[in-house]
Amino acid sequence: MGELRGTCVVAQSGGPTAVINASILGVIEAAIQSPSITRALGAINGVQGLLEQRLCDLGAEDPRELALLAQTPAAALGSCRYRLREEADFKHLLEIFRAYDVRYFFYNGGNDSMDTCDRISRYMAQVGYECRVIGVPKTIDNDLDLTDHCPGYGSAARYIAASAMEIRRDIQVYNTDSVIILEIMGRHAGWLAGSAALAGTVDQGPDLVYLPEIPFSLEAFLDDVDRVRRASGGKCMVAISEGVQNEAGEFFTGGAMAGMTDSFGHTQLGGLASSLAALVRDKLGVKKVRGIELSLLQRCAAHFASGRDISEARMAGRAAVEAALAGHTGKMVAFRCSRTGGYRCEPTLVELSQVANQEKRVPREWINSAGNGVTSGFLDYLSPLVQGEFSPVLEQGLPRYARLKLAPIQR
Amino acid sequence: MGELRGTCVVAQSGGPTAVINASILGVIEAAIQSPSITRALGAINGVQGLLEQRLCDLGAEDPRELALLAQTPAAALGSCRYRLREEADFKHLLEIFRAYDVRYFFYNGGNDSMDTCDRISRYMAQVGYECRVIGVPKTIDNDLDLTDHCPGYGSAARYIAASAMEIRRDIQVYNTDSVIILEIMGRHAGWLAGSAALAGTVDQGPDLVYLPEIPFSLEAFLDDVDRVRRASGGKCMVAISEGVQNEAGEFFTGGAMAGMTDSFGHTQLGGLASSLAALVRDKLGVKKVRGIELSLLQRCAAHFASGRDISEARMAGRAAVEAALAGHTGKMVAFRCSRTGGYRCEPTLVELSQVANQEKRVPREWINSAGNGVTSGFLDYLSPLVQGEFSPVLEQGLPRYARLKLAPIQR
Repeated sequence: MGELRGTCVVAQSGGPTAVINASILGVIEAAIQSPSITRALGAINGVQGLLEQRLCDLGAEDPRELALLAQTPAAALGSCRYRLREEADFKHLLEIFRAYDVRYFFYNGGNDSMDTCDRISRYMAQVGYECRVIGVPKTIDNDLDLTDHCPGYGSAARYIAASAMEIRRDIQVYNTDSVIILEIMGRHAGWLAGSAALAGTVDQGPDLVYLPEIPFSLEAFLDDVDRVRRASGGKCMVAISEGVQNEAGEFFTGGAMAGMTDSFGHTQLGGLASSLAALVRDKLGVKKVRGIELSLLQRCAAHFASGRDISEARMAGRAAVEAALAGHTGKMVAFRCSRTGGYRCEPTLVELSQVANQEKRVPREWINSAGNGVTSGFLDYLSPLVQGEFSPVLEQGLPRYARLKLAPIQR
Repeated sequence: MGELRGTCVVAQSGGPTAVINASILGVIEAAIQSPSITRALGAINGVQGLLEQRLCDLGAEDPRELALLAQTPAAALGSCRYRLREEADFKHLLEIFRAYDVRYFFYNGGNDSMDTCDRISRYMAQVGYECRVIGVPKTIDNDLDLTDHCPGYGSAARYIAASAMEIRRDIQVYNTDSVIILEIMGRHAGWLAGSAALAGTVDQGPDLVYLPEIPFSLEAFLDDVDRVRRASGGKCMVAISEGVQNEAGEFFTGGAMAGMTDSFGHTQLGGLASSLAALVRDKLGVKKVRGIELSLLQRCAAHFASGRDISEARMAGRAAVEAALAGHTGKMVAFRCSRTGGYRCEPTLVELSQVANQEKRVPREWINSAGNGVTSGFLDYLSPLVQGEFSPVLEQGLPRYARLKLAPIQR
């Protein structure tokens, strides 16, 4: 492939992570260094903002602020959940790409975003507009296929494991019965819920871990909790994915717990953790039961990000630019890793069309036979991802995040 | 006072904090160094375990594990919530003190524990048994009187402020309306809820902060939220103390939200945050509303402890032993601080009887006139407490906590 000169646009999509901005930083660094890329623009709020021509010049940002993107959570360029409409949106995109001479487009997101990326790449090829489109993966859910793992997962997992350790220490202090139910994100895959078990490799972790890969039964759950607490001085700690479903594939969250209405005389409105806590209180007669939802905290806990996750996210951004400069399009940056004789991770490229709309779930052999815990295989896979040195730059004792100007550019 | 030779006993009581074990470390270090203290015992589960003679020899612990107490959350010696009974428990305590030659007793706890400490000190004096009893303060609630602040508060505040920053960044990413209600501990004092506002000094923090010191009105709350979201692109972040009460002094948590039953057609069981989230959804028609409870996470988040809090907690433990060796009894270690020309903090002693059962609330002048935020006076007071260098010792990327043997001793 010959040299292709032009503008690059980078944008973010889907839910925030602790390290998604480290990927943007990687893209910007590599783009600014390349003579082929004439300017690096950011689109605000993903493809939605791109369609509205809400663009900013990332090359005009203060380099010190850009460097802080490495430790800034959420999505510095804003995000969206928008599905491009055939064919109007694509025609519109083409006009915009032409107007700004956009020859490189980098989209930083999860499953849906990789689909968007794939469709843009194919459309541009089809209409004969030369533009290289590369996906940069991110998702705390770790459910993208064809990559060892996804940037964002290691940091969320590290936060979840540390929080599980802390909560476990907390409930051990009193000489009384205590059951804790920790609700963790992940609608379809149990990568995050399973990460709570990592606490047990260094300290004490949850006794029971329920992933959405295994059908969830309230009866078996109550039996498990009862058995554990009787065997361990009245304590039981549960980690559970918000996405667990019964045999019929129905969720237990919110209204889906309606089957429990009778025993309480009212409808449960809260999340899964508080519903299960009420059930344990009611059915097992344990007084001290607490449901804890990690909620948004787990996806944006940059203050305890994994150093390795930050470096890899940044590497993925750089690799995307390098791949595009080398002539690739319609690809996603993936990670190929080795864990024998030390952990090694290198970027590689996979077809966007093979990643888009696939969901990688936790393999059955990494879940114990009873379906209430993960195996050492799972923990060996995860452990390297939460490591690496990282101390956030602080201001008055608190993390200092990037303050970008994001000044709109004139067309 | 002449030299008093004998055993020292240290114990912990009340709710866990991130740094309560740093105080225990301070006590052990100073006790081991002193020739007057013949051995340093720990009582498991506070005075309750002491009455049951559940004692261990802290001098027999591995010094490397003891050092890790500085970063270990919860209560390494276990805790209790036990009120000593007149006069049986005191007589029993006296027998135990005689049996083990206990001449120094250090009790690490909050309000109630300082009362226990005071009663033990007075009883021993009354029966003529020479024993020096010193209280070592701890509480994330920061509600102990006669001290600038309490060990444990700075770390909880740091975690709350960082979490508030992260959540704020998270809700900013989408181009849609979003209201977040962050529920923070503190039944009677708003020190913790107010700490969320510290996020705004370095990044963006909550728009509204409600403390239990000000009567809480649902109508005013809804007006506030509506006004803020209209003025700021549909976003509003609220930090609220679990302890807010209406004009009649009634809590809003759990069943106390029953007044809201009609508008929803069912009773609210969840915490304050989810109840208020439902109210905002219902009354203001905002779809994306989320209640987040920081729950136990805030009181045991050692992974993001304040370095200054850790040092001060340790200093408090050492100061307690030094005070006892100097002949004091019936005292609590307090902090006298200066914030002009840099922060300085030194230990001092106050009468246990003057601290016990008092509650220090946030002064009215540190709450804004509308009663929905804190002033710069509050933030200037708090800011130094969340600072200081601290990077936890890690094992496989996760914090490594102290593993004490706590082997029971023979009488």
